[in-house]
Amino acid sequence: MTIGFIGLGAMGMPMATNLLKAKLPLMVWSRNGANAEKLVGEGATAVASATQAAKVDILFSMLADDQAVSDVFIAGGVLDQMPQGSIHVNMATVSVAMAKKLTQLHAARGVGYVAAPVLGRVDVAAAGNLNILAAGKGQDLERIQPLLDLLGQKTWRYGEEPAQANVVKIAANFSIACAIETMAETSALVRAYGIESQAFIDLLTQTLYPSPVYKGYGTMIAEERYSPAGFKLALGLKDVRLALEAGEAQHLPLPLGSTLRDSHLEAIAQGDGLLDWAALGKAAARRGNIG
Amino acid sequence: MTIGFIGLGAMGMPMATNLLKAKLPLMVWSRNGANAEKLVGEGATAVASATQAAKVDILFSMLADDQAVSDVFIAGGVLDQMPQGSIHVNMATVSVAMAKKLTQLHAARGVGYVAAPVLGRVDVAAAGNLNILAAGKGQDLERIQPLLDLLGQKTWRYGEEPAQANVVKIAANFSIACAIETMAETSALVRAYGIESQAFIDLLTQTLYPSPVYKGYGTMIAEERYSPAGFKLALGLKDVRLALEAGEAQHLPLPLGSTLRDSHLEAIAQGDGLLDWAALGKAAARRGNIG
Amino acid sequence: MTIGFIGLGAMGMPMATNLLKAKLPLMVWSRNGANAEKLVGEGATAVASATQAAKVDILFSMLADDQAVSDVFIAGGVLDQMPQGSIHVNMATVSVAMAKKLTQLHAARGVGYVAAPVLGRVDVAAAGNLNILAAGKGQDLERIQPLLDLLGQKTWRYGEEPAQANVVKIAANFSIACAIETMAETSALVRAYGIESQAFIDLLTQTLYPSPVYKGYGTMIAEERYSPAGFKLALGLKDVRLALEAGEAQHLPLPLGSTLRDSHLEAIAQGDGLLDWAALGKAAARRGNIG
Amino acid sequence: MTIGFIGLGAMGMPMATNLLKAKLPLMVWSRNGANAEKLVGEGATAVASATQAAKVDILFSMLADDQAVSDVFIAGGVLDQMPQGSIHVNMATVSVAMAKKLTQLHAARGVGYVAAPVLGRVDVAAAGNLNILAAGKGQDLERIQPLLDLLGQKTWRYGEEPAQANVVKIAANFSIACAIETMAETSALVRAYGIESQAFIDLLTQTLYPSPVYKGYGTMIAEERYSPAGFKLALGLKDVRLALEAGEAQHLPLPLGSTLRDSHLEAIAQGDGLLDWAALGKAAARRGNIG
Repeated sequence: MTIGFIGLGAMGMPMATNLLKAKLPLMVWSRNGANAEKLVGEGATAVASATQAAKVDILFSMLADDQAVSDVFIAGGVLDQMPQGSIHVNMATVSVAMAKKLTQLHAARGVGYVAAPVLGRVDVAAAGNLNILAAGKGQDLERIQPLLDLLGQKTWRYGEEPAQANVVKIAANFSIACAIETMAETSALVRAYGIESQAFIDLLTQTLYPSPVYKGYGTMIAEERYSPAGFKLALGLKDVRLALEAGEAQHLPLPLGSTLRDSHLEAIAQGDGLLDWAALGKAAARRGNIG
Repeated sequence: MTIGFIGLGAMGMPMATNLLKAKLPLMVWSRNGANAEKLVGEGATAVASATQAAKVDILFSMLADDQAVSDVFIAGGVLDQMPQGSIHVNMATVSVAMAKKLTQLHAARGVGYVAAPVLGRVDVAAAGNLNILAAGKGQDLERIQPLLDLLGQKTWRYGEEPAQANVVKIAANFSIACAIETMAETSALVRAYGIESQAFIDLLTQTLYPSPVYKGYGTMIAEERYSPAGFKLALGLKDVRLALEAGEAQHLPLPLGSTLRDSHLEAIAQGDGLLDWAALGKAAARRGNIG
Repeated sequence: MTIGFIGLGAMGMPMATNLLKAKLPLMVWSRNGANAEKLVGEGATAVASATQAAKVDILFSMLADDQAVSDVFIAGGVLDQMPQGSIHVNMATVSVAMAKKLTQLHAARGVGYVAAPVLGRVDVAAAGNLNILAAGKGQDLERIQPLLDLLGQKTWRYGEEPAQANVVKIAANFSIACAIETMAETSALVRAYGIESQAFIDLLTQTLYPSPVYKGYGTMIAEERYSPAGFKLALGLKDVRLALEAGEAQHLPLPLGSTLRDSHLEAIAQGDGLLDWAALGKAAARRGNIG
Repeated sequence: MTIGFIGLGAMGMPMATNLLKAKLPLMVWSRNGANAEKLVGEGATAVASATQAAKVDILFSMLADDQAVSDVFIAGGVLDQMPQGSIHVNMATVSVAMAKKLTQLHAARGVGYVAAPVLGRVDVAAAGNLNILAAGKGQDLERIQPLLDLLGQKTWRYGEEPAQANVVKIAANFSIACAIETMAETSALVRAYGIESQAFIDLLTQTLYPSPVYKGYGTMIAEERYSPAGFKLALGLKDVRLALEAGEAQHLPLPLGSTLRDSHLEAIAQGDGLLDWAALGKAAARRGNIG
């Protein structure tokens, strides 16, 4: 079995590394060639163009967004180079529309297509502890499962349509935006009455929400520490938009999404788009002129 | 030290019981006289009118809302009967406006006033494990702390102004509404793509949100089990309104609150006000005609 | 037939003056005594207390808001002094809840109660050209119609329940807030593309909306001229709130109202509450950092 | 001077006819060939393909939306066939993004590009009374002005960038959605209190809003007559989306737009997308269960 991995960014690197640790032969490519070279010492074969990594049995990709996937797989010709019967495992967070388009294009080409976006940040990826949300044909999923087991602690299967895994990922990211905005608005509210955010966030995270999302973003909001950005607010808007678009395609209003979209836009207009997503806390306070 | 307890509803009963278990003498009154009688066997002295319970050193009250507190303490004359130097510990969830009014009235009468609303439902109250959010004069808080220790696992102090504890409680309840609506909208979104809510809620509660709020309400939404109501949706609207009013008094917009208010109203208009708060899940699905 | 008029503010003065012009005997009272004195030269009898104006057949009142009406008619005892069979014509913009309360209190006292709020500003009142929105018992309306004809160009009847006229007035005011916000957001949008607001507002008012509301507020937004205030933004919030409350009492969400409430609060928090209602235009631009 | 006209739908037909009435030679093409044939009797030359209409001095187009313009002018090769120095006058409502893309492509090809979307429906077009919103290079505008004068009563110039005229058109359409939703919500509010919508809409249109938009849509809402559709609600969503996108590109939140987007989606989900835009009135009433 030959394997390829395209896209060696912050997430792709540790994921590819975990495949190499299992002594699997891996053909790797990245827009940033230096990253591919780094993996040669781990046993990878670095190739000079993405299409060279395409002639494998299983091809993983971990690219930034719809545009990057489209550039590499469609315009860049990688899909056209994949052998019939091979499988493309797309682990990126892409839109439902892109997922549907890719599903069609892969089917027309006789290539299996599995969507397998993940929950977990870089350190979780490095530890092989990701939660993998997967959807695609049952036989394709069976075939790649041993590989997914090297990348994540658990694979959650969400159906036969690849887009189903993407919508779960989109909904999960959307829930994070909701949680941040919730802490942003409630923190602003207690601050308006002279209470330290930290004392309030501690209450939330020690009682109602002993959750990594609440603890992580809550601490940043309490400390008003929005830089350096772990995940930029402007990227958060992209996630909210993916949810709104997925809803709109089914005529489903997401009122929280409308609210979040406006909060993000206002924050970006005020110059805070490059701050951490937690800077919704700054935006909520600004609206009430709480300094 | 003499102690009184007014308001023996679902929460007041176990709380008063915990005071009695510590062998404290307790004068009790409830609109529902039968509840007071039940505590006589535990050592309480049941009195026939609220004002008779007023002549104590420390008077706890756990009444339903602003109106009930106003009826009993202001119109009903209980405050007028309290001795100078005594302390009223109001554990109900009341509005910021009512908290401020009560603070003034108690001060004018020379009676200490502590706001001490709680987080935790009936079983938590029975176990003496409540989280108590307290605010008031430092000396008053010191004096009642041993009694609060009988009722809760922890007392969180939020300042000298009683209203400060109320705003924290209001913000915490508001955060719950946000969490429910978040699960409601995201569940509707994944359902619109043919995914079972349960499979999505499991993901959320096992990864991002290992939180009692997410687990409890998430399960109800996933199972579309909105009755019997643990906490009625129509009461949830009251909590959202308390947050909006607290924000408005400080000119602080709470966009999530505006969204939630409308979701609640629409649900109530459709006849779901007496269902559990989790029925926001039903409302979110209805908006997208997801059946 | 004896007539009284209580409340001689900016609107009450020209209205009372129009009654006097018809040579009607008029007993007048105002918190601001000087205004009552001014009308003596026109033939009015100024009295020193509101209750002295109460003993008439028809008593008009034009007070600021719920609080003022309550202070004068309930707490101040004016209603108690009105003769059985007399009629109180309340021309103020009050809440639906207050209208219902007053309806009950007047009925209990045997006094007719007509709600007759008006559309039109001071100059329209002076010209006797108000549009009067009236509701109440048919016989009461018939009896006062000749007097209303002195005040307005047209009386619109909206039912037997006085609150019905108030909800129409509240809905009309609410529509004005919507129109202002519409011009505020669209002006911000075209400005974001380098177009002068004035050129856009001219288009709207000369084609789609040849309306006094669009022309008046549109011009202020285009000129960014928000002071002096014809009608203060903070009072606009009151009108929006009246609509939201009227909706809530019937479990009717008003999504535009939620949006408007937040826009007003944000504007007030930024210090613009005393500017003209048109300053929603400033708020819309600020959200997008359009300077 | 040779002239072409592409797109002979409901609006294009009367517009092309007005050019023919002035005895101008006109080359016409339409996807629906029959429409082009109809104009032959008026003096037009019907051609079999869009590219055949391209070799003219001035080429008007009145196509449905972004997709149609892209299909015909970019993918269909019409732009490539236009002579250097000719001018394309695009009268359709397209997105700001499409306007910018077309501006670039035309400039690269040495073809003038004027955006000239219009206000006014079919009957207004037939009478030559459109309001034309135009933007583009001054010399191009001067050259086509005599032709625009045959189509409209007035040309409003909005700048050198074609997208500027489009954003004005988008903002104007957006304002119509706001006006409809305003009447929808306020009508629901008064109906909740037992008042006929018609009596309320009459008040609005005879006093505050003597405007064709308020009268036309208001009457439909009052009569609950949403079919046949003059302009479909689902198309209204497209207009709202154009405004939201135009705002987002400049980081400008449009809170009314967020509200409108959700109202439209909910209406469409309930099966009302093919009803007239006025069916927002049905949606507003449904939210409050007002039957």
